[in-house]
Amino acid sequence: MITASICTIGDEILIGQITDTNSAMISKQLNKIGIKVVSMVTCSDENNDILTTLERCLKTSDIVISTGGLGPTKDDITKKVLYTLSKSSRYTCNKTQMEINRRILSARGIEMMDLNLQQAYVPNRCTVIPNRCGTAPIMQFSFAKSRFNRKNLLFSMPGVPFETEQALPDVISSIKAHYKLDNILHHTVCTFGIPESQLAKRIEKWEDSLPENIHLAYLPNPILGVRLRLSIYGVDEKEGKKEIAKQIRSLKKLLGNAIYGEGETTPQKVLGEMLEKRGATLSTAESCTGGYIAHLLTQNPSASKFYKGGTVCYDNKVKTDLPGVKQMALEARKKFKTTYSIAASGIAESFWMAVATPFGTVSKNISSKSTRQINRERFSASAINLLRETILEEEENKKKQNKNK
Amino acid sequence: MITASICTIGDEILIGQITDTNSAMISKQLNKIGIKVVSMVTCSDENNDILTTLERCLKTSDIVISTGGLGPTKDDITKKVLYTLSKSSRYTCNKTQMEINRRILSARGIEMMDLNLQQAYVPNRCTVIPNRCGTAPIMQFSFAKSRFNRKNLLFSMPGVPFETEQALPDVISSIKAHYKLDNILHHTVCTFGIPESQLAKRIEKWEDSLPENIHLAYLPNPILGVRLRLSIYGVDEKEGKKEIAKQIRSLKKLLGNAIYGEGETTPQKVLGEMLEKRGATLSTAESCTGGYIAHLLTQNPSASKFYKGGTVCYDNKVKTDLPGVKQMALEARKKFKTTYSIAASGIAESFWMAVATPFGTVSKNISSKSTRQINRERFSASAINLLRETILEEEENKKKQNKNK
Repeated sequence: MITASICTIGDEILIGQITDTNSAMISKQLNKIGIKVVSMVTCSDENNDILTTLERCLKTSDIVISTGGLGPTKDDITKKVLYTLSKSSRYTCNKTQMEINRRILSARGIEMMDLNLQQAYVPNRCTVIPNRCGTAPIMQFSFAKSRFNRKNLLFSMPGVPFETEQALPDVISSIKAHYKLDNILHHTVCTFGIPESQLAKRIEKWEDSLPENIHLAYLPNPILGVRLRLSIYGVDEKEGKKEIAKQIRSLKKLLGNAIYGEGETTPQKVLGEMLEKRGATLSTAESCTGGYIAHLLTQNPSASKFYKGGTVCYDNKVKTDLPGVKQMALEARKKFKTTYSIAASGIAESFWMAVATPFGTVSKNISSKSTRQINRERFSASAINLLRETILEEEENKKKQNKNK
Repeated sequence: MITASICTIGDEILIGQITDTNSAMISKQLNKIGIKVVSMVTCSDENNDILTTLERCLKTSDIVISTGGLGPTKDDITKKVLYTLSKSSRYTCNKTQMEINRRILSARGIEMMDLNLQQAYVPNRCTVIPNRCGTAPIMQFSFAKSRFNRKNLLFSMPGVPFETEQALPDVISSIKAHYKLDNILHHTVCTFGIPESQLAKRIEKWEDSLPENIHLAYLPNPILGVRLRLSIYGVDEKEGKKEIAKQIRSLKKLLGNAIYGEGETTPQKVLGEMLEKRGATLSTAESCTGGYIAHLLTQNPSASKFYKGGTVCYDNKVKTDLPGVKQMALEARKKFKTTYSIAASGIAESFWMAVATPFGTVSKNISSKSTRQINRERFSASAINLLRETILEEEENKKKQNKNK
């Protein structure tokens, strides 16, 4: 199995000013193509520390991905270290990056112009992957087996998470072209509303009967629910997809509407898509969630197509019981003249939610013992999920009624 | 200088399922007492990997803090490794932790009872710092200089961030008792509304004239503004506090109301305190921020004392101009019968905010070119800050008028 180490460079991480989110992001992508990350390490911006750390990583893993230390100022010295490490003999200008840098700088204004232009110069032993969102190019180095006893690849990526994220697909492609990797397919099924332990019980038989080359992982999250990731190893793509599709059909029979989507999605995104598709509109009435349901719904850039607005009522007079929350939902639907509405109310760890539809209201009570923020996330997503399930159930009931006629 | 390494243990971090936030949290606290973190490393849950990583850390730094791998299930083997590493000869029961575990388990229900009780057993060579929020105690080991050529301290902490956070003060106390550390005092001054580069220019002369033993750091954040951290080294506490107080007085003259607080605070917390103190109330009217201002205000557990509620209007008909946002503020103030109101509107990167007070309305326009979420954070905090500054200015004007009478 091909192994990798991730090395984040920067004093700002070591002093705790910044939380390193790059390592997890990179690791997830490496994992997906079947590369095992064996270590993550953070080192300072000092020459010797970077060199020692990179060399150790090169000795213990096939691929090393470093991020950071590529800024234009003199405290960023990763490039200098890579020049030495790769035994380069001069710096060459990468014309693509130079063009990008000119464009970025003219858009930003001319501050630090010269230093930023110089970022397009790289050690001559490296291959450049252009950075389209920033001025520091991604540098790729190859090391012969004679050097660290492995055929290494080393990538140096910028430290700004957005730039790392944007450049990562190119790095992954380059890795795929360089190594013969096992085929791995991943597929995520997103569920909401069933706690992890109950979910595990409900799908126990199915899980036990999974073929040996399929691995199942549970990924719980207060906003996203419990996502189930299926990974299938060592099959060709077509066959793998067929097998996964088969397993997901079985899973859907077991979980029904608790499954809100597949792949990278969220309950609020799915609800938004459902509403848009139906030409329906939505309003909200919140108390204890303090605007967080509205915030989640409007994370969607096209939210204005279906979300009309909401109220946040934080007065102590708000009724935190079942009739109270039902009334909130009905009032919001009427006030904003929307097809649906979501209402949320509660105190401390007990939470009431209700949705109003053209056919009536549905309400539900849940509790959660966690931090204020996690409770807020879980409650808000639960209320959004209640509307999703209610819409589906109403449509199913309608279908049944039509059949019975 | 005493050095430290932070070692996070767990496959879930290596595969990118979880972002390690413990390292930054621990590092910040070590930094504050003058300990330099020289490396952060993440290793797998494998016996050999944990052992090698810990040994390397013990050789290169005085203090090693590990987190994770202490769960009750058999995949968590950190304790076993520490047993070997510390050359312990048996496991002993820590009675304090056993009591805590019984209490926690009886509150949670009896699932996994036996395994969780066993977590109170520790290698006999360790000193226990009880974990009051979880079932895995913090284990502290000392190593003589003969072992790794340093007088090492090793702490093994739980991986759950909340438990790590709660136990960290005890670990820091233990470190302080064990090493003779330089005195360092930190003080943070929180500013909002002046971009970092402009702020630096505005306080340039003051910064240049700072005594050599005072270090200044800029900490920018979309919600918190730019915080300035002053660190003063090697002085006794009383003298240091006096010196810092003097510097902050100078800083306040330069920055005035742009300073919203000191230490660990937020613009929304400060505004909340101001309103509570004045017995004043607040409402909101949001469009583009989609409920995020309400969310920030209600992060405050005592928000219901001053925040009465708000509206989120996400209809395309909302006017995203100056008269539009002023009207929104006036209407919210009237509707919710509050002393003050905050309104926010805008499209894409251009943002209008207005506040209504008993004396009129004040509005402001800003722009930000960032991601949707960062723009939302910056815009929301800016609107909150506008009300804070407006209240202060109105009070200052009133004072002046009274003087002139």
